[in-house]
Parts: sequence; structure tokens; C-alpha cells
Amino acid sequence: MKYLDKQDMDKLAIGAALLGTGGGGDPYVGKLMAQQSIDKYGPVQMITIDELATDATVATFAMVGAPTVLVEKIPNFESFDILYDEFVKYNGDKIDAVMPIEAGGVNSMIPIIFAAIKGVPLVDADGMGRAFPEMQMDTFNVNGIHNTPAVFADEKGNTAILNTSDGLWTEKIARSLTTVMGGSILNGVYLLSRQELHDYAIHHTVSTSIAIGETLMTSKQPIEDLQVLLGGTILFRGKIQDVARRTDGGFVKGTATLTGLDADKDATCKIEFQNENLVCLVDDVPRCTTPDLITVLDLETGMPITTEGLKFGARCVVFAQPADDKWKTEAGIRTVGPGYFGYDYDYIPLEKTVKG
Amino acid sequence: MKYLDKQDMDKLAIGAALLGTGGGGDPYVGKLMAQQSIDKYGPVQMITIDELATDATVATFAMVGAPTVLVEKIPNFESFDILYDEFVKYNGDKIDAVMPIEAGGVNSMIPIIFAAIKGVPLVDADGMGRAFPEMQMDTFNVNGIHNTPAVFADEKGNTAILNTSDGLWTEKIARSLTTVMGGSILNGVYLLSRQELHDYAIHHTVSTSIAIGETLMTSKQPIEDLQVLLGGTILFRGKIQDVARRTDGGFVKGTATLTGLDADKDATCKIEFQNENLVCLVDDVPRCTTPDLITVLDLETGMPITTEGLKFGARCVVFAQPADDKWKTEAGIRTVGPGYFGYDYDYIPLEKTVKG
Repeated sequence: MKYLDKQDMDKLAIGAALLGTGGGGDPYVGKLMAQQSIDKYGPVQMITIDELATDATVATFAMVGAPTVLVEKIPNFESFDILYDEFVKYNGDKIDAVMPIEAGGVNSMIPIIFAAIKGVPLVDADGMGRAFPEMQMDTFNVNGIHNTPAVFADEKGNTAILNTSDGLWTEKIARSLTTVMGGSILNGVYLLSRQELHDYAIHHTVSTSIAIGETLMTSKQPIEDLQVLLGGTILFRGKIQDVARRTDGGFVKGTATLTGLDADKDATCKIEFQNENLVCLVDDVPRCTTPDLITVLDLETGMPITTEGLKFGARCVVFAQPADDKWKTEAGIRTVGPGYFGYDYDYIPLEKTVKG
Repeated sequence: MKYLDKQDMDKLAIGAALLGTGGGGDPYVGKLMAQQSIDKYGPVQMITIDELATDATVATFAMVGAPTVLVEKIPNFESFDILYDEFVKYNGDKIDAVMPIEAGGVNSMIPIIFAAIKGVPLVDADGMGRAFPEMQMDTFNVNGIHNTPAVFADEKGNTAILNTSDGLWTEKIARSLTTVMGGSILNGVYLLSRQELHDYAIHHTVSTSIAIGETLMTSKQPIEDLQVLLGGTILFRGKIQDVARRTDGGFVKGTATLTGLDADKDATCKIEFQNENLVCLVDDVPRCTTPDLITVLDLETGMPITTEGLKFGARCVVFAQPADDKWKTEAGIRTVGPGYFGYDYDYIPLEKTVKG
């Protein structure tokens, strides 16, 4: 058990952006919101899954939609209250702790705001260990825990409660609600037991994010120290030569092309992204695919670069980490593997494409 | 108190189509659904507002969206059960009786199906006394009774519960849900007290609809007998010369032009419609506008013609009735007067445009 203060939010924002693999929204906006809530309500208690009482229930909170829209809404904590109260009322149950559903700029921070406002602990875990764009894409839903009732609230005082027949319908209806309710809405889903968290959650995501941020903020050789901390693999060192983006079905899809530097100087690297980085090819050979994590880091500072931050000329390291084993099931790969996103590659675990 | 049987549905369908002023959907589909539910569950008890217990609570049920989509869903009463149960669960209150929110083909029938399935009485009243296209357009909302919680269900087992900050948001979000959930969804809203019904409902809408249907099915001089039954005014007798339709924002908008017959033979009549008939002009002078009722009737049979049924060459009577006084308030005219629908005419009550 420890307390998270405003400085931890600086670290968490950086680490969550790295685990967010290019997506998850602007870390800056989320960080400001979390820091403002800690200013007002005090530091947030973080506990591990093992520290939960055996009968504890844990809810996940996030934002659905375009993160940038939230900027104007920062001072409005009222909609957090409305959502939380509606969630508790509808479920007819207490919430003993809150948890992020994903790692990424805004959605690592939203549960901290709930924890601060409501005075409940934050659990050091999440349901992805990274960021993914759709509501059915978490390790609870993939393991048969249905993702409704799901509760939504906008900043105008409107709320919606969904119950659906399957996880894909939740995503489909939620996406439509997001559009009509103003582009970004708060969301609460799941009431998980300690046993369910133990079996299906990705453990230690928040503390890992903070450790990543601390490393990158303080290290003199950040890329090397990151590898010491996380393991993982450097897939490529290069310079961004081209970024092609298009908007398709509410998502930003595209390809970043890098030409090699140093040992990679005769090679070309392509990163395919859809909000998140999903496929990395070196000289047209797939080296890493979703759900394994692909992050683009600044070559000098090691700071993660989101997909919207990818710019011509930037000198980068393409850094990969294996996904948690909880994703590496048939249902997991069907839900978040390259095929779901329309890529014609099989998922080959990072460990097998990378020479020891 | 009386019981409604399958034959009453034939009459109700005709009368509701007349009060539906051209909108409200195909009466045939609704009728089949109601008759099937009476076949299965038995006749439906209909009571007046005065026959309600003083502590009774009454819910309104309807369908939102395109009525034709429902055709394929007729055999599925399960979604009615799901909606009703979710409505009761969320409101935490009993339902003593159900009621239509509007008069019109499908939505006069939906509450009868609920009454049959659930074995509760139907109240002989509604919230419009006619049909209108949007969820904020009823005499409860106009009188300050908020139109949420509103509960929605599709035939796939998905449900949604809305709470909104004002009645227009309910309409906006419901319209979006309708689209994503498959084009037409069931809806429950309001839990009204006997006093609220007494003060704000339009009384006797169901029995009036049935009486209209009976008159038109049996009379040898239907138009004359209709006037004896309802009062009302014949604005025009003519032949449809032209119907211009366009789709705009999910609604079918258009103009029907009639050339006169008999006493009207040198005149022209235009009917502006948006799902419902909203404005009637004779020689370009407004003679009747929403919320007063404008219905196009077959000249021979007196049968009502919906806006989608308006066809070149049809010989018609344009029949008008004053709206219930509950619509004739400032809030009422702001909500459903010609200005709301984008017409540049003031509302002038029918009584003032028609010579005694």
C-alpha cells in the first residue's frame, strides 16, 4: 500500500503513455485532471490485488471517445459524482476500490480522479496492460465476464445505462452514445471480485507505469535503463521518413515509415497503427504484432511518442514488449490479434520473432 | 371499464390512423401485433383515468424509430418482457396500468401488447391526442414532468436506460440509440399518478379512436357521420395533383398539392407534412396548423390516408380538428407549433380560421 501524490502523476503519465503503445490519448490532459483532483481531495491510496479484502468489489472507470474534448471539462468533477452514484445505485452494491481498465494517457488518470473524489483506494492493475480502442477488448470480457451493465455520463448531466447481449454490442452502442453525448463520456463497468482480479487482471500496471516514468525522468541512459526495468526488445533505430494518416470509422489509422540509423542503416521499418501501434515490419517482415506492445520512443530521451505525435525527421527507437500471457489465448487473439484489425498477418509471439 | 378484443383492434387501427394525422406508422403492422398478443394472452381491460386507484402509477410505452422495421419482429414478445422488467426494476416501483403516449398506427397498439402480456389494464388516454415525431412532444413533458428515466429495448436483448438534463436531450440520445440498435426499439417512460393524468393527459383517446373506426367501418355516409362524432371541419375536397417528398434528418418531409372538387373547384390546397400533416393552406392562406389535427381522408370511404399513402389522383377530403386545449399554452406552441417545425406561420387556432 502506498499513496500517490501529484509528482507520481508526472511519472504515471509518462509510463502510461509508453504502455499505451501510441494510443490512449494525450497524457498531459489526463495528468492535469488527476493532479487537480489530488489538490482538492488529497493523495490517493494504491493497493495491490492481494491487499484487497476477500469480499471486496472493484469497479473500472474510464473515458470513451476523443480525449481532447475533455480539456474544456477539467473543472467539472460533478459528472464523476453523477456517474459513480448511478453506477452504485444501478448495481445495488458497494464499490470497495476502483481500477483502470487500460494503460494510456487519459484512462490511467480517470480512475485516480474517482479514487480521490470518492475516497476509495486504487487497485494496482488493469484489464489490458496496454491500451486498446474498443470496449470488448479487455481480459475480463475475453474471459467471459460480460461488460455490462455499463454506465455512461456526460458533462451536461445526461447518463445512460446499457445492458447488452454480448461485448461487441456494448462497444457498438457505447460508440454511438459517445458521438451524440458530445465526443467523450465517462464510463463505469464491471464489479469484479478479488478472485476475478487475481485470475484475469493484468497485475501491477499502475506501479510499473510509475517506475517507467521515474526511469525516463531521471536516467542518463534512458533506453538502456528501460530495458533493465522492463526487459523488452529494441526492434529498430531510425528516423521517421513518412507518416500517412486517414480517419476511418472514428479511428485514426495510418502507417509510419522509418529509415534506419546505426546498425539498422540499410533497413526500413513500417509501423501500422489504429490509434495504437499494432504491427511493426522490418524490411516488410512482421517483427511484432498486437497484442504484443510496440512503442515508439525518442532516441535521446526515451520518452514515448503517441501516434499523433509521430513527425517527419524524428529520431526514434521502436521498442517492443511481450503482451501478458492472459492475452495469448484463442479468445484473446481473436479479440485483439492482427486479424481483428484487418491485417493479414498471424500473431507470432514476440519471443519467437526476435533472436535471443 | 370494458375489455378490448381482436375486433376492437380493427377499429382502433383506423381511428388511431385518423388521429395520427398522417403519421404514426402503418396501422396494419401494429394491429397484427396487438391481435396476436390478445390471441395469446386474452382481451385487454381498458379503464378511464377516473377508474384508477388514487395511488395508482401509470407508465407509457411506445416504439421509437421506423415502424416498418418491426414487421420481422412480430413473433418476439420477449423484448416486451425485458423492457417492462427493466423499467420496473430501475424505477423501483410497481406499474398499475399502461397507456399510449400518442395516437397512431403502431403506438396505439404497443401499450395494448404490454397490457396483454403483463395482465395490467390500459388507460383510455394518451399524451398527445394525435401523433408527433419527437420524444419531448407530449403534454406531460410540456407541463414540466421530465421524460426520463426512459428505458429502451431492442429485439436482440440489448437495453438502455437514459436520464437526461432536459426533454430535448432525451429525444436526441434516443434517436441515436434507435439507429444503432436496429431502426426501431421499444420504449417505456413516465410513471404518472392519477392526478398527473387527470391534469395533463389527453382523455378518452383510445375509446375515441375505436368509435372513429367503428363509424368508418359501418357508416353509409362516413364523412358526415365522422363530423357528427368528432365535430371538426372539412377544409377542402380535392384530387391529389402532386406529392413532393424528401428525407431530411431521419424524417420524411414534403408537400401534397390538391386541386379542388365541387365547391372548391377553383381552389388549390397544399398540405405540408413531416411524418405528420403539419400545415394546410388553401390558395396559399394558412387554414390549419399544428398542433391542430389535419387528416387526409378518402372522399368515398372516409378512411384516413397516411403521408406515405398520399398518391397522385386520389380523391380526398382534408379534415381538421382543434387540438386539445392542453396544447394551447405558450410551452405547448413552442414545442409543437409551426415555428418548431421550421414553418414561418404563427399558430392560429382552427376555430379562428374557419367561418362558423
